[in-house]
Amino acid sequence: MEPVLRQSKAVCPFLKKSSPGSLRALSTAVRPQAAPSHCGGSMSKLQLLANRCPIMSKAIAVQTAHHGRPAAMAKVSSVAGVRGFGTGTKAARAKVHTSSSVGARPLEDTLFGRSPEAYPPPATPRPNRDVAAAPATNSAGRFDYNSFYEAELEKKHKDKSYRYFNNINRLAKEFPRAHMSNKEDRVTVWCANDYLGMGRNPRVLQQMHETLEDYGAGAGGTRNISGHNKHAVELEATLARLHAKEAALVFSSCYVANDATLATLGSKMPDCVILSDSLNHASMIQGIRHSGTKKIVFKHNDVQDLEAKLASLPLHVPKIIAFESVYSMCGSIGPIEEICDLAEKYGAITFLDEVHAVGMYGPHGAGVAEHLDFEAHQRGEYKGTIMDRIDIITGTLGKAYGCVGGYIAGSAKLVDVVRSLAPGFIFTTSLPPATMAGANASIEYQMEHAGDRRLQQLHTRAVKEALGARDIPVIPNPSHIVPILVGDAELAKRASDMLLADYNIYVQSINYPTVPVGQERLRVTPTPGHTKELRTDLVEAIDELWGRLGIKRTSDWAAEGGFLGVGEPVTTEPLWTDAQLGIEEATKEILQEGSGVGVVDRLLEREAGSA
Amino acid sequence: MEPVLRQSKAVCPFLKKSSPGSLRALSTAVRPQAAPSHCGGSMSKLQLLANRCPIMSKAIAVQTAHHGRPAAMAKVSSVAGVRGFGTGTKAARAKVHTSSSVGARPLEDTLFGRSPEAYPPPATPRPNRDVAAAPATNSAGRFDYNSFYEAELEKKHKDKSYRYFNNINRLAKEFPRAHMSNKEDRVTVWCANDYLGMGRNPRVLQQMHETLEDYGAGAGGTRNISGHNKHAVELEATLARLHAKEAALVFSSCYVANDATLATLGSKMPDCVILSDSLNHASMIQGIRHSGTKKIVFKHNDVQDLEAKLASLPLHVPKIIAFESVYSMCGSIGPIEEICDLAEKYGAITFLDEVHAVGMYGPHGAGVAEHLDFEAHQRGEYKGTIMDRIDIITGTLGKAYGCVGGYIAGSAKLVDVVRSLAPGFIFTTSLPPATMAGANASIEYQMEHAGDRRLQQLHTRAVKEALGARDIPVIPNPSHIVPILVGDAELAKRASDMLLADYNIYVQSINYPTVPVGQERLRVTPTPGHTKELRTDLVEAIDELWGRLGIKRTSDWAAEGGFLGVGEPVTTEPLWTDAQLGIEEATKEILQEGSGVGVVDRLLEREAGSA
Repeated sequence: MEPVLRQSKAVCPFLKKSSPGSLRALSTAVRPQAAPSHCGGSMSKLQLLANRCPIMSKAIAVQTAHHGRPAAMAKVSSVAGVRGFGTGTKAARAKVHTSSSVGARPLEDTLFGRSPEAYPPPATPRPNRDVAAAPATNSAGRFDYNSFYEAELEKKHKDKSYRYFNNINRLAKEFPRAHMSNKEDRVTVWCANDYLGMGRNPRVLQQMHETLEDYGAGAGGTRNISGHNKHAVELEATLARLHAKEAALVFSSCYVANDATLATLGSKMPDCVILSDSLNHASMIQGIRHSGTKKIVFKHNDVQDLEAKLASLPLHVPKIIAFESVYSMCGSIGPIEEICDLAEKYGAITFLDEVHAVGMYGPHGAGVAEHLDFEAHQRGEYKGTIMDRIDIITGTLGKAYGCVGGYIAGSAKLVDVVRSLAPGFIFTTSLPPATMAGANASIEYQMEHAGDRRLQQLHTRAVKEALGARDIPVIPNPSHIVPILVGDAELAKRASDMLLADYNIYVQSINYPTVPVGQERLRVTPTPGHTKELRTDLVEAIDELWGRLGIKRTSDWAAEGGFLGVGEPVTTEPLWTDAQLGIEEATKEILQEGSGVGVVDRLLEREAGSA
Repeated sequence: MEPVLRQSKAVCPFLKKSSPGSLRALSTAVRPQAAPSHCGGSMSKLQLLANRCPIMSKAIAVQTAHHGRPAAMAKVSSVAGVRGFGTGTKAARAKVHTSSSVGARPLEDTLFGRSPEAYPPPATPRPNRDVAAAPATNSAGRFDYNSFYEAELEKKHKDKSYRYFNNINRLAKEFPRAHMSNKEDRVTVWCANDYLGMGRNPRVLQQMHETLEDYGAGAGGTRNISGHNKHAVELEATLARLHAKEAALVFSSCYVANDATLATLGSKMPDCVILSDSLNHASMIQGIRHSGTKKIVFKHNDVQDLEAKLASLPLHVPKIIAFESVYSMCGSIGPIEEICDLAEKYGAITFLDEVHAVGMYGPHGAGVAEHLDFEAHQRGEYKGTIMDRIDIITGTLGKAYGCVGGYIAGSAKLVDVVRSLAPGFIFTTSLPPATMAGANASIEYQMEHAGDRRLQQLHTRAVKEALGARDIPVIPNPSHIVPILVGDAELAKRASDMLLADYNIYVQSINYPTVPVGQERLRVTPTPGHTKELRTDLVEAIDELWGRLGIKRTSDWAAEGGFLGVGEPVTTEPLWTDAQLGIEEATKEILQEGSGVGVVDRLLEREAGSA
């Protein structure tokens, strides 16, 4: 404890000047109007000060990362040497669960500022810190920029997080096939986010061709200066209608939408606190960081933890709960209704990222929030639904809708505030007319047709089922994501490279820092275009590859007690129920005919036969 | 002075605890290795600490805004009550000059965080601070979000900065005409940034149609996960070639490119200092803010001020000088060569935003940096040129190139570092294949054809000449921007509205916070498509409108001593010389024939006649 205090005093003039007595007073004085909580959610005045300090807040974040405790909590007094240190327990191995997490590592603080690598992996020591301390100046006494660049790149190589991009040219007329840099080399793409193949939908393409012809390539300006047009008006009206909100606002991307919206609201609302799920996407993490306001990370999908943290804050303080519906790397789904309940109870607003869900869930493709009241929305009733209760929904035009761009939807006033204040919206060129028109056509198509997302779900079930039958470790989840656990950075990259080279199958490996070290995976995303033949190719290739590379199978993980739900007695029901997919009867009949293996495939064959 | 100290002590526990003696010691102790400077550029230890503090750094920024002094300098000791206060002089009225500025107001700190309104206009008091302090909680004791939104919007209305978007549908086949929400209502667009009309260039459109057909609407993923393709490879190769750099990297927009690049480099390089021109674009301001590193604002285009600030920093410290080539709202041009000299002398790297210049200047359209060595680049020699000396060039695909997107170009290692570390690049969907292919075609076309930018320059000259002849106040500058001074927010908006309603001419008014209060203007951007007839319409409409609204003419400004170069004995030579435009001979002949009025128009008539 003494070294910690000494170290802290060395960097902080405040701590250096303060007597132990006054520090003790500050660390025990609870924030005015904050009800003390038994869940560790209360904040001392000292904690508040420390969270505002750019140096201490970073130190806290690093400590939190090491010890798996939330960033805004219970660390400062340790640093200041008042309460003691070392109470954090080392999480043996992080877990990502489908509903709540035990020890899931907050990735929150890893993605910026000090950059991903500054976040040390839980078990392995940080690689080559010596490289980072490479020659800083050249012979002339100037900073050596080139050595700095080299050192940064060397770090990425050493910790295996350096990215090699694959040249993948997705062919509209051969979806989901693509050619490589050589036009003759065909591969099947199994990891794109064009989940429904809308990027080649004839109605979308037709609309884009016509708009391109009539209105040209670019918008020609920002929304305020000649870049506002009927395409923007129509698209935003459609988006508002899709989510049953008063208004919507389109951005260059959903990265920008999340960043700009959270940064703007967080910085403008006095004393705002943003409560952020520990697995939130980088764009939200950035937006919160850029807001400069207080952030409290809650455990992934853990409503108890969230409530404890909400309860520790004064009722009158503005609060934003930022979370996702479908978490893209593990496929888990956020407890939206419970979070709405908590928001109402504690006077917070909800910010729901539906990026991986829009187009994919709900009777009109509005996302998971719509899906949760499937029948009501089918009848056109939205009042009082979960989607209606969400304050801000953000989504993308670049995944299931097959185009590019992002948006927010919410009340007219909220949207107008963001429109009026967010630099990332104001000072940038609008999306091209053809892009907005194409996206609009895509959304409208998916509002009317449920066939693509239904087929996508059936193909997902078929792939999960077939992989499961071959003892391939799929991280269980209720969504359309098929995360296949590898658990090693080099192995994951080799598996991806070999799938491409030897089997003409493209599945990018997902490594640190996108997922924690030790959780490396292949992330497979089936689409309506992934037919039986392609699915069989994939499953056989993976099965063979797992043997060639000696990658652990589900039974291996089970023998070790399971990991991330793999090899554990976890049962997850898909969000799309049999009834919603309209396969209740047929499934029953097939099950009566024989074994439970290959049910979905047989179901799809039946449908193909009767079609 | 005492109230300042009292106030500071109330917010800062460090100041509260520190004795006057220790504060004095800190404020006189100069930073280790920093050579003291006579230009006010040295930093005391106390200043350094204050700049790191989230509360004090904001206070300094506000004080700087009031007193027109750079943010990172010479304020802290005042706040701490050591050196005294009130030495800042109130700039009577800000000026934007074409080469160097006298009292140009740094907009740096106005655009975020505390939001534009928190920046009080120089003369007028901040409007309705009371509205900002509107009811914060509702009857249930919760924060009242709706009242907050209303109050924010009310502020925008009150200070006339609320934006009303005009529905402008630019017609590719009738460029530069557009229709309004009613398809029959035609207007001439005079303020788009599709400077060359490349948004309707047949080669660009053809390329986009074909790519759309073959590769679909969207990229389908991030660059790392199925969104990397030959379109990205080719576009980045073309951009690197355009700027004669080793590599280039494409982003969703140049807003994102600037933000992500500055934030990444600034946060990664140890103790980095970013020196930023006071008129830099919002995207750079945000990037610097997001880097969390030290920022020093230098006076607009003032190399003396920049040198003083560079000299005050230790040689070994990494420094980025961030500036623009063409400043879009006043048309001034940055002193690129002098800044390169300073960068070399003081061990800094240069970050040059050529957003409003790419496609428009230089024999290949690479921008102002290329233009400055016109003949060398024409001969294909780039070694040792000014463009070659710039470390990082950023540009857009959404203005002169007519599409959407942004990029950086620089050394392979620098680009790889940004590619590997910038979340705004990594975690977002790639631009659509058709967009990248269209932009590539556009750049290549402009590398081969100088006709569009030459005609654009001639039309700019013609408009400036014709407006000048009618005593209309054009802010003088050497670029293609035609800023017409109004000097009043309501008048500017009325002028813009009446141009649209009564004359079918669309020129958006530019009000605070995009320009300072009192400098409101109409910003006109001629294109190759603005023929004699359209130019005459514009000039006559503005002349008439100036009379109807009683807006000040050049002679009125002159009678008051001039403002922003208007009515002042300023002569600016256009960057594109007569020789570069190939009009030396013809101009001489026309001038021999008669008066100097309408020279450019007669020149254009001649060319049309001989064509």
